[in-house]
Amino acid sequence: MQIAEPLQIAIDELSKLPSIGRKTAQRLAIHLLKSEIDSVEKLITALHNLKTKLRFCSRCFNISVAELCDICQNQKRDHSTICVVEEASDVIAIEKTNEYQGCYHILGGVLSPLSGIGPETLHIRELLKRFESEEIKEIILALNPDTEGEATSLYLAKLIKPLNVKVTRIARGIPIGGDLEFADEATIGRAVIGRINIE
Amino acid sequence: MQIAEPLQIAIDELSKLPSIGRKTAQRLAIHLLKSEIDSVEKLITALHNLKTKLRFCSRCFNISVAELCDICQNQKRDHSTICVVEEASDVIAIEKTNEYQGCYHILGGVLSPLSGIGPETLHIRELLKRFESEEIKEIILALNPDTEGEATSLYLAKLIKPLNVKVTRIARGIPIGGDLEFADEATIGRAVIGRINIE
Repeated sequence: MQIAEPLQIAIDELSKLPSIGRKTAQRLAIHLLKSEIDSVEKLITALHNLKTKLRFCSRCFNISVAELCDICQNQKRDHSTICVVEEASDVIAIEKTNEYQGCYHILGGVLSPLSGIGPETLHIRELLKRFESEEIKEIILALNPDTEGEATSLYLAKLIKPLNVKVTRIARGIPIGGDLEFADEATIGRAVIGRINIE
Repeated sequence: MQIAEPLQIAIDELSKLPSIGRKTAQRLAIHLLKSEIDSVEKLITALHNLKTKLRFCSRCFNISVAELCDICQNQKRDHSTICVVEEASDVIAIEKTNEYQGCYHILGGVLSPLSGIGPETLHIRELLKRFESEEIKEIILALNPDTEGEATSLYLAKLIKPLNVKVTRIARGIPIGGDLEFADEATIGRAVIGRINIE
């Protein structure tokens, strides 16, 4: 027996999504098939609006409804500090902490010569261009602490330092709620090196 | 910062799907946002067709394009044997084996008094009605081997046996490629009880 064509197509399309395998795609498709038409319509409208109503901020490449994103438009934020992140999802993660009042710049990835991602693929040129029109005092590098993230951080620091701007990097250390005993050596090493005074 | 509304709505809708948590929903939404408009349109069309072009077979409740599903319409199949399964996905799993040539009946779940699923919620009445119009010789119960599946199997066997029909159940035993050493006691017990002659 062949699976009914509309079902097969839906499974194929769903399994193209990241972290969705064929079995999960089949379960999702059958779930949607059994759902109320209303809830499927809602999902379809949401996906449609996602593509038609949103774009990327022309300044920082954050997800935005308008030409400039809410953060770039917000005059209460500190426009002299820019936090450089890999993806828009990192902005959401940092914003959830309520600890950061500056602006952002989304690179769109990290340098990865093996995957063919060089500096020209990322929004690095656009970051450097911001120095011409904005008064930037500090660049905070908040890339993921893996090899590629570290290499990209070093690359960016080298580019930006000659512009007479403070370049910092978010702290590496033991995560809150983590257990020293089970942390890996590299993390503990970084935590010791990055120790701070208790005041 | 608030997440842009169309993104928030898409995350909300995606996270209503089974096995998709909020983090995965956010990753999927951002992935779709960054995808080509074409591939998102394809997904939207597939989901739309899933709901508009498919329905459930009026005889066996399998997924179908027409009033009767491909299997019920197929005259080459054995219409005197009906395999009773929980969900339409079980039909796909059994069909993939190419070992079964009979027809199906999809219950739509199993009896679960604690979740309020009684016999009237399932397609049991419709199964009994099929005995009036079809010449059924064997009912194969292929429900999942958990407590609720076993209880439903017993309930159905009790209902169907008085109709003078052979009622069987698919074999329980060690899965192909499984390891006897790591199989649980209940499975090994069933495998011993269900042993067959080597011919």
